[in-house]
Amino acid sequence: MRYSKRVGSMQASPVRKLVPYATAAKKKGIKVYHLNIGQPDIKTPEGFMKAIREFDEDVLAYADSVGSDDLLDAMIKYYKSYDMEFNHEELLITNGGSEALLFAMMTLCNPGENILVPEPFYTNYNGFATCVDVEINPITTLAENGFHLPAKEEILARVDEKTRAILLSNPGNPTGAIYTLEEMKMLAEIAIEKDLWIISDEVYREFVYDGLKYTSFGNLENVQDRVIIVDSVSKRYSACGARIGSLACKNKDFIAQVLKLCQGRLCVPTLEMVGSAELYKTPKSYLEEVNKEYCHRRDVLYDAIMEIPGVVCEKPTGAFYMQVKLPVENAEDFVIFMLNEFSHNGATTMATPAENFYATPGLGRDEVRLAYILNADDLKAAAECMKYGLEAYKAAGHK
Amino acid sequence: MRYSKRVGSMQASPVRKLVPYATAAKKKGIKVYHLNIGQPDIKTPEGFMKAIREFDEDVLAYADSVGSDDLLDAMIKYYKSYDMEFNHEELLITNGGSEALLFAMMTLCNPGENILVPEPFYTNYNGFATCVDVEINPITTLAENGFHLPAKEEILARVDEKTRAILLSNPGNPTGAIYTLEEMKMLAEIAIEKDLWIISDEVYREFVYDGLKYTSFGNLENVQDRVIIVDSVSKRYSACGARIGSLACKNKDFIAQVLKLCQGRLCVPTLEMVGSAELYKTPKSYLEEVNKEYCHRRDVLYDAIMEIPGVVCEKPTGAFYMQVKLPVENAEDFVIFMLNEFSHNGATTMATPAENFYATPGLGRDEVRLAYILNADDLKAAAECMKYGLEAYKAAGHK
Repeated sequence: MRYSKRVGSMQASPVRKLVPYATAAKKKGIKVYHLNIGQPDIKTPEGFMKAIREFDEDVLAYADSVGSDDLLDAMIKYYKSYDMEFNHEELLITNGGSEALLFAMMTLCNPGENILVPEPFYTNYNGFATCVDVEINPITTLAENGFHLPAKEEILARVDEKTRAILLSNPGNPTGAIYTLEEMKMLAEIAIEKDLWIISDEVYREFVYDGLKYTSFGNLENVQDRVIIVDSVSKRYSACGARIGSLACKNKDFIAQVLKLCQGRLCVPTLEMVGSAELYKTPKSYLEEVNKEYCHRRDVLYDAIMEIPGVVCEKPTGAFYMQVKLPVENAEDFVIFMLNEFSHNGATTMATPAENFYATPGLGRDEVRLAYILNADDLKAAAECMKYGLEAYKAAGHK
Repeated sequence: MRYSKRVGSMQASPVRKLVPYATAAKKKGIKVYHLNIGQPDIKTPEGFMKAIREFDEDVLAYADSVGSDDLLDAMIKYYKSYDMEFNHEELLITNGGSEALLFAMMTLCNPGENILVPEPFYTNYNGFATCVDVEINPITTLAENGFHLPAKEEILARVDEKTRAILLSNPGNPTGAIYTLEEMKMLAEIAIEKDLWIISDEVYREFVYDGLKYTSFGNLENVQDRVIIVDSVSKRYSACGARIGSLACKNKDFIAQVLKLCQGRLCVPTLEMVGSAELYKTPKSYLEEVNKEYCHRRDVLYDAIMEIPGVVCEKPTGAFYMQVKLPVENAEDFVIFMLNEFSHNGATTMATPAENFYATPGLGRDEVRLAYILNADDLKAAAECMKYGLEAYKAAGHK
């Protein structure tokens, strides 16, 4: 019995593939520093569980397909604080940012059409695209250049008659890059010239460091009819398990199309919206504290990583990842070596091999993504493991 | 700016289209008996909220993509009580039965392939199919025949080289029909002869009346390599707002394919699984009580509806719907009339026009679906409104 090409050709999770190696290392008594996952250790604001515990209806009924009024109202206020004006007809609550991205792709693209995406990109972009027969059309960016965008001509050269949208994450996962206002204006020009949508994944909006001014695509006036903003409570409020995301778009026609998909799956969970409405009411001071903590962690990990001879990494300015080029030929082989054959002071480090973050074959083979989601001491120890691990890897004859 | 054909061609919710009429009726002070929705009024078992209130983790973290161990364990025990043996490698938790159906279609069908579905069917089957470029290939069933299946030859005649699966709900939404063991064996034979999958939507498994013996497709030994069982807590435990569904399949290759889709959207909500695990531990006596209540409601509504001259409806034996043929040419027009121009003792009844439950053009135009989800007195009053409403509709010159 055969399966569809779309699902058959999807990769199994590249992270999951390596989990057995980590499990085996732990069985040997080795401590594994997990820099491979994006699960924050920051406490979820207490308002989330408080509101849910107080929920007191006899029947856990369907919610409205568009999302609950309370959550929509809270999000509208949140956006207003960033000078973005949305109303109830311009917002849809989704099952995580994941469903928002899937629905956007389904709605904009016929099978065989493509979406421009700066690579390296969040690996699940590829998964969502594949399962709805959409192609990722990559714009290559480089570690040496801090993963900033190439010149306009280079991007225009990638656009063909089947290109429907530009999708990007800003702040970037896995790069930690923040696009400059000039880069954003260039993308906006391209979108207008080539009649493309812009899907802006801004789930790390508050994770911007070094006093950089962050601009949302929701703030660029001239493209509001073609900008779709994807958001999520997962990272912002350390509530990954709530699976509450959203789509915001000033183009009501687009929202009306996606609404049909929302109605098809009826609604997102009632209680998660009760809790998430409280999250969006969390005082900004919470987000500022979290920002400080991640900024500190970034500094600690970056300084420690840059002490390793041969690594290439521009200091990232956002999100909680860094994409690092290692002095090895095959980063996945190195990650497996670290779990399988190496330990330092009884510990080792697990990174994510980055090849799957690229659509262009062969790129990223010498890169890993590191998530700085551990405390400073653990991050230092993890980087030290990487350093000695690389020495041991080379000493064992690997290239 | 254009949208994809798949989403562009989706219908907006046929139920939602009529909501403004109901709202307007209520504004005029008219009580509306909502027989148009499948939202039960039965209390959700208390274990659900109790378990969630006791959840006490600092960080609301991602769950496993396959679902939580606790929920999977509870479901395995539940299935065992129906003589179905599943293990952790044969079960996946999904965002409602909706996602289970969408993932099954995505995994089995290339764009342009088709799935056999007895019509009338749950209208969202059409939505899921459209948005992944799959076609519904209808097997017509008739009100006069209690919506039972036609002869094997008639079904075989619908199978073409692009047919990949048979999808059915049993007990049936909107028909309330329960397939006989002979019908199921016939479908199993067809599936084997034509190499088709069977997607069995059994979310109403416990809603079977009149002492009928219910057989799951999970109990037919000879097709276990090609049977996919869709389940949900929504109706079973009156927990529609939890959005917890599942896929069960003894074919581990199928599960491995769908797992890639599950990994792509990361996980379903952590807390909803905490609560749903308790739902699946609810004593069977709860389900028996609920069954008794719905059986009573069915009797009340059916007896009252059959007093209306000209209606055609075989007494349904399952779920909580009846699909009723009315003595009118256009049931949607009648439903709008009931909301717009009619009241009896200050009340009216809202039914669901059934044309959208058919894929064959023109069928079902004179049918409505009634959900018996109100208490017995309200059901009697609702049927009385239908009766006088039909008289008034005819008296006003409608056909």
